[in-house]
Amino acid sequence: MHPLDGVQALLFDVFGTVVDWHRSIVDELAAKAKGTVHEGEAWGDFANEWRAGYSRTTARVAQGGEGPASVDEMHRLLLDEMLSSPRWSHLDSLWDDAARKDLVLGWHRLQGWEDSSAGLAALKERVIIGTLSNGNVRLLIDMAKSAQLPWDVVFSSQLFGSYKPNPKIYLGAVGLLDLPPQRVALVAAHISDCAAAKAAGLKAVYVRRPTEDRNIPFSPEFIEQGKADAIADDFWGVVKLMDEADKHAEI
Amino acid sequence: MHPLDGVQALLFDVFGTVVDWHRSIVDELAAKAKGTVHEGEAWGDFANEWRAGYSRTTARVAQGGEGPASVDEMHRLLLDEMLSSPRWSHLDSLWDDAARKDLVLGWHRLQGWEDSSAGLAALKERVIIGTLSNGNVRLLIDMAKSAQLPWDVVFSSQLFGSYKPNPKIYLGAVGLLDLPPQRVALVAAHISDCAAAKAAGLKAVYVRRPTEDRNIPFSPEFIEQGKADAIADDFWGVVKLMDEADKHAEI
Repeated sequence: MHPLDGVQALLFDVFGTVVDWHRSIVDELAAKAKGTVHEGEAWGDFANEWRAGYSRTTARVAQGGEGPASVDEMHRLLLDEMLSSPRWSHLDSLWDDAARKDLVLGWHRLQGWEDSSAGLAALKERVIIGTLSNGNVRLLIDMAKSAQLPWDVVFSSQLFGSYKPNPKIYLGAVGLLDLPPQRVALVAAHISDCAAAKAAGLKAVYVRRPTEDRNIPFSPEFIEQGKADAIADDFWGVVKLMDEADKHAEI
Repeated sequence: MHPLDGVQALLFDVFGTVVDWHRSIVDELAAKAKGTVHEGEAWGDFANEWRAGYSRTTARVAQGGEGPASVDEMHRLLLDEMLSSPRWSHLDSLWDDAARKDLVLGWHRLQGWEDSSAGLAALKERVIIGTLSNGNVRLLIDMAKSAQLPWDVVFSSQLFGSYKPNPKIYLGAVGLLDLPPQRVALVAAHISDCAAAKAAGLKAVYVRRPTEDRNIPFSPEFIEQGKADAIADDFWGVVKLMDEADKHAEI
């Protein structure tokens, strides 16, 4: 049996899996500092620290802790914290309230990986495709417009009152799709997200992306360890997997 | 000031406004009776009665009453009730469980009005476009695929725990769009839906469709009565309204 037999919907993690947050945010930061004495800052480090704060906060809320009502609010709080921290406080006066608001909206304008837009369009011909992201609904809508992501449906943890990897996020989306969990696969560039989807009864496809899981050694054994059902190098690899599953089902 | 000044998102009622439920359901019923002694039934009446049951049930739940968890369940209960009623019980043995399940799925396969698919694509270039329907999420996804409706987002009353015209449906969607209510307009072929959106603080565009509001005399005074902000003959009329609002904003 093909590991994706019977899958009728693919839900995608977005930050890192569909869009290249690192390059996009570095570009936004650099553009906003251009022509100032801060032009040469380590924007890659700044972007990584901002993203790490997001990961830490969503993980805490997913386990039942308190946190901001939306990822937009979270990004703003984290930005303000960073700009008053020892490492970045010299930048505090560089950006006023309006500039900070616009930087937060930078997370709505992330650009897709090269294969994302066309790969998703090809997958949309085969199955239902949707987001399953910790980003808030409006952020995901804006991003779909700017990066041309042809979603059938936009699911956000905002609809379900927690964040991934809380199982109620995965099961909430599955319920709205009116499908049994094993007919839905999560596609993600984070093996922890794949493993959480599997634990909730969904299937999972691990896609390798250059900015993601940098500190987790890749292993083809993720599959036999029960953390993913299949591994792909990009969304064309996911298309191939879905075609193989289809062909298998017809035999 | 143009009545749609500042509108950044359009939310669409779906049954009747975007899709021609009557023709589609009559076709489904007739196809399923073809070649039997029941070929010549009054399928138009059957479709109207089914639809009236849906309207009655959602209205009751919107006011706080009990009802089925999803529109799919509701359509099945209503179908079974009709097939054991005096008027239609002679058809009871015509359709078994599988046929009835498929008839209920007929509501997922409704075809758009002639202007719907291309009109929505044109509007999507200008603003955020989404559903705001009492139909469940999966039904709306399936319908978007079959009728080629290019939504940015699928909002269903299923996400907010009641049905239109309960105000929490309109305000729930506005909240997820992260916009003030007056920046969002409902587009609907039912003046009652328009009036409820207006009462919740949204704007509303009334679109005239041949199958809808048949018992409500049309009046251009709907606008001065506060039930709608604008009236259009089809989605090209809505495109024109949005272009006028834009032009007005630029002056």
